[in-house]
Amino acid sequence: MRLLLISNSTNPGEGYLEHPKETIREFLGEKTKNAVFIPYAAVTFSFDEYEARVNARFAQIGHRVTGIHRFINPVEAIENAEAIVVGGGNTWQLVKMLQERKLMKAIRKKVRQGTPYIGWSAGSNIACPTLRTTNDMPIAEPLKFKTLNLVPFQINPHYLDENPANHGGETREVRINEFIEVNRDLYVVGLREGTSLLLEEDELVLIGNRKARVFHYGEDPRELSNEDDFSFLLR
Amino acid sequence: MRLLLISNSTNPGEGYLEHPKETIREFLGEKTKNAVFIPYAAVTFSFDEYEARVNARFAQIGHRVTGIHRFINPVEAIENAEAIVVGGGNTWQLVKMLQERKLMKAIRKKVRQGTPYIGWSAGSNIACPTLRTTNDMPIAEPLKFKTLNLVPFQINPHYLDENPANHGGETREVRINEFIEVNRDLYVVGLREGTSLLLEEDELVLIGNRKARVFHYGEDPRELSNEDDFSFLLR
Repeated sequence: MRLLLISNSTNPGEGYLEHPKETIREFLGEKTKNAVFIPYAAVTFSFDEYEARVNARFAQIGHRVTGIHRFINPVEAIENAEAIVVGGGNTWQLVKMLQERKLMKAIRKKVRQGTPYIGWSAGSNIACPTLRTTNDMPIAEPLKFKTLNLVPFQINPHYLDENPANHGGETREVRINEFIEVNRDLYVVGLREGTSLLLEEDELVLIGNRKARVFHYGEDPRELSNEDDFSFLLR
Repeated sequence: MRLLLISNSTNPGEGYLEHPKETIREFLGEKTKNAVFIPYAAVTFSFDEYEARVNARFAQIGHRVTGIHRFINPVEAIENAEAIVVGGGNTWQLVKMLQERKLMKAIRKKVRQGTPYIGWSAGSNIACPTLRTTNDMPIAEPLKFKTLNLVPFQINPHYLDENPANHGGETREVRINEFIEVNRDLYVVGLREGTSLLLEEDELVLIGNRKARVFHYGEDPRELSNEDDFSFLLR
């Protein structure tokens, strides 16, 4: 399998998909690919707008996307895709729409056959067994929590260390500690902004200059860098 | 109905349940009440510990609680309760346990008959039609999203205005704007820390010195204070 799982589309002060663009170029290769793009996580703007925003960046790196909303038969669009790109937004809305359109199974099958998969934020989260490590508000009720299950661990995108000043709510680490308490067999990767996980066959590495924080029940959290091997997460 | 829906247990730098203790005292009255306490939102500490922590504060105001985990028949415990108190923690875990034990219906019925209900954080969220405005990580999958439906609007507890510095994720306002986009008939009250909503019969007011931010599709958000009437939310 080939997966590029990006924490976030946009670093503060940068343009949309600016930080991962070279990584995406390398991942998709020299030859122009026309990827199928899933814009379903967009809630307050249109799928057309979302497609245009992604294409503005992809054009700079010699690739393009076509929104799945343009196809009469979305399952067939996935079956014929050269690459699959899933954008961020609201994870719950994304999962609900993929389930209702019976696209989870189609995407899972296609990516397992070797089609490159790129996701950011919600699009990275759904590559995991379930959406249970999302940060998003559950604005829509999906059929179930199960997602693509392309990797056997959970990603928490936009991982951050701090709470805003003078805020009494739980930190992200507290939330993930709750997760591993009730899901003791699963690893969770806190993927900080500006970083990605790259899977090529059986090799999993981190891309970007910030470390990832890896959680597992009964162990101290581990801080791993782009020089470490993350493949233990695949077992 | 009598509801006291508190945003958060603890303001930064203060003790547990310090900020709402006078409000709780007034709400429960002079005569000592032994309330049934629901500790199910606790994930990383025990129900006994949670009960003890709440009782330490309630003792100062002449009341006490008994954890529902001590009763052989929890539905019967609700039916006989003098008051019901639902503590914060993880909303998903709380809702899952209440649903599995068939307590949602029992609590709804009892509170509609006039038994005082106090909740904070997750405990306030579940007084709403669904849990869809929680900030919590969905670490456990409940049977459904429907909750107590004691009020016809949604509360977002721990409402905050800012993101941490240098973080690219959605602000709370962006998340709630997504919610009202797909749930156009529902009001959402962003309940800032240190504040509560008090319902006495048909009168709904805000307690605390910070304003609440009220969202509805197609309208500018409203900032309402403890001098405003919130009863329009009940229609």
